[in-house]
Amino acid sequence: MSDNAIDVDPGTVYLVGSGPGDPDLLTVKATRLLEAADVVLHDKLPGPEIIDMLPEDRREDVGKRAGGERTPQSEINERLVELAREGNAVVRLKGGDSFVFGRGGEEAEYLAAHDVPFEVVPAVTSAIAAPAVAGIPVTHRDHASSVSFVTGHEDPTKEESAVDWDALAATGGTIVVLMGVGRLPDYTEALLEAGMAPETPVALVERGTWPGQQVATGTLETIVDARDEAGISPPAITVIGDVAGTRESIVDFLQTDYGTVEDEA
Amino acid sequence: MSDNAIDVDPGTVYLVGSGPGDPDLLTVKATRLLEAADVVLHDKLPGPEIIDMLPEDRREDVGKRAGGERTPQSEINERLVELAREGNAVVRLKGGDSFVFGRGGEEAEYLAAHDVPFEVVPAVTSAIAAPAVAGIPVTHRDHASSVSFVTGHEDPTKEESAVDWDALAATGGTIVVLMGVGRLPDYTEALLEAGMAPETPVALVERGTWPGQQVATGTLETIVDARDEAGISPPAITVIGDVAGTRESIVDFLQTDYGTVEDEA
Ligand SMILES: C[S@@+](CC[C@H](N)C(=O)[O-])C[C@H]1O[C@@H](n2cnc3c(N)ncnc32)[C@H](O)[C@@H]1O
Ligand SMILES: C[S@@+](CC[C@H](N)C(=O)[O-])C[C@H]1O[C@@H](n2cnc3c(N)ncnc32)[C@H](O)[C@@H]1O
Repeated sequence: MSDNAIDVDPGTVYLVGSGPGDPDLLTVKATRLLEAADVVLHDKLPGPEIIDMLPEDRREDVGKRAGGERTPQSEINERLVELAREGNAVVRLKGGDSFVFGRGGEEAEYLAAHDVPFEVVPAVTSAIAAPAVAGIPVTHRDHASSVSFVTGHEDPTKEESAVDWDALAATGGTIVVLMGVGRLPDYTEALLEAGMAPETPVALVERGTWPGQQVATGTLETIVDARDEAGISPPAITVIGDVAGTRESIVDFLQTDYGTVEDEA
Repeated sequence: MSDNAIDVDPGTVYLVGSGPGDPDLLTVKATRLLEAADVVLHDKLPGPEIIDMLPEDRREDVGKRAGGERTPQSEINERLVELAREGNAVVRLKGGDSFVFGRGGEEAEYLAAHDVPFEVVPAVTSAIAAPAVAGIPVTHRDHASSVSFVTGHEDPTKEESAVDWDALAATGGTIVVLMGVGRLPDYTEALLEAGMAPETPVALVERGTWPGQQVATGTLETIVDARDEAGISPPAITVIGDVAGTRESIVDFLQTDYGTVEDEA
């Protein structure tokens, strides 16, 4: 047994977050569970470096089905139960943290409803880490006494949109948008209409801590152009608020293992 | 050189988060930096297990001064610069993530202003992890399309309070309060006045992932009593929203390394 050994329980599912993508940002516990698991269910979000670490014969990619469309969550839930009932120690590996827009809650509920024991292993979320490695603190004593994480993939003009951009603007805190590359024009518009200043700093961090990390910065008014010029595509985090301006004042002394530091618009 | 070796740069400050307290929830990178650093500046928030791992002769506790009062941030900033200029590889270790109510932003700004190179090493924040290990996902497809982290140590009745509880209530998302044990009566009241339902589930998680982890649950109306009965004291996380109710439906199958699972009010 190596130094890294950990006891895993047969018939148990481990809901494990991978962190943002750099294998060194896995937790110690996640690393050990990945080594000890009988099978690892994952999609592409943990990023190329972590996925390459997983042994071929003990991993299942449940991100896309053969046809190319996304595997339904119900199928993943059933597969977790099936593998656990066969007596496997199963790791369900998610990008970032499983409980931050990661459907970990639904998986936990399904497992409990089917009498399958599970453990939750928290992780570094991309919502904090991607801004951080780009020099952006999501809270700051001088700028933000709250930070809100929100999904950007809903249409803000739709009546039934679950996201209230007016209320988010009114908090006065930092707004961090996940899954928000495509609808950037819609929700920046919604925030301007809600009365946020056009010069509010905004930053986009694509593939934070992955080999291809990229950053684009601007304001609520200019960020859509900055996105297009830099060619930002998913996965990326949008940070809206004065904290996004911190980057400029510290970036010259920011050491980083990741990608280019400069990609200003 | 051991397997765990990492190159640290003399004269550089590493702003490193410790995670919530379980040493196994340190990132791989944090573990290596703690081993390689010439000196580690820390306070008590990383928790007893991680602090015990730090070698006596290479650590400085900058949490409290001899007299017992808190070390001013300005003094910590100056010490970081001083140690770096002497050529040390310095780790500034924070509980949770340095950039989530951790003053990492201020430290980065001070270092940059004094020409000291620094690196940011993101971590698992207690704001996500403490709820998670208690069976509470901060977001959930059925319950919450946003989550807001907010500081609870301001007086919500004060005019100049930077936290807008009305706006937070209006988001409809999960509210996670840090530093919010003492003022729990004030902000639960503020949220009720803002129109949140009295039966909204609320959970308190004290010392999440530490040996003495404790959980108390209730509603916006009953949580103050639950806090008092369970004797919850800082550090603790408050989770407000329907997601806090998830715990009840999954806790029987939740495996945990931490403390008691049950402490219901
Ligand atoms: C379904 S959500 C999952 C979030 C994940 N559970 C977490 O905690 O980071 C997917 C979104 O996460 C964000 N994301 C995940 N990894 C990222 C990374 N390395 N860099 C930037 N954004 C990332 C993107 O906004 C992406 O659209
Ligand atoms: C100054 S804030 C620092 C937060 C930290 N940077 C983080 O990301 O977790 C201190 C507050 O964090 C919360 N906290 C930190 N560690 C905790 C833990 N292990 N369990 C519960 N709450 C914790 C408490 O609300 C505490 O009052």
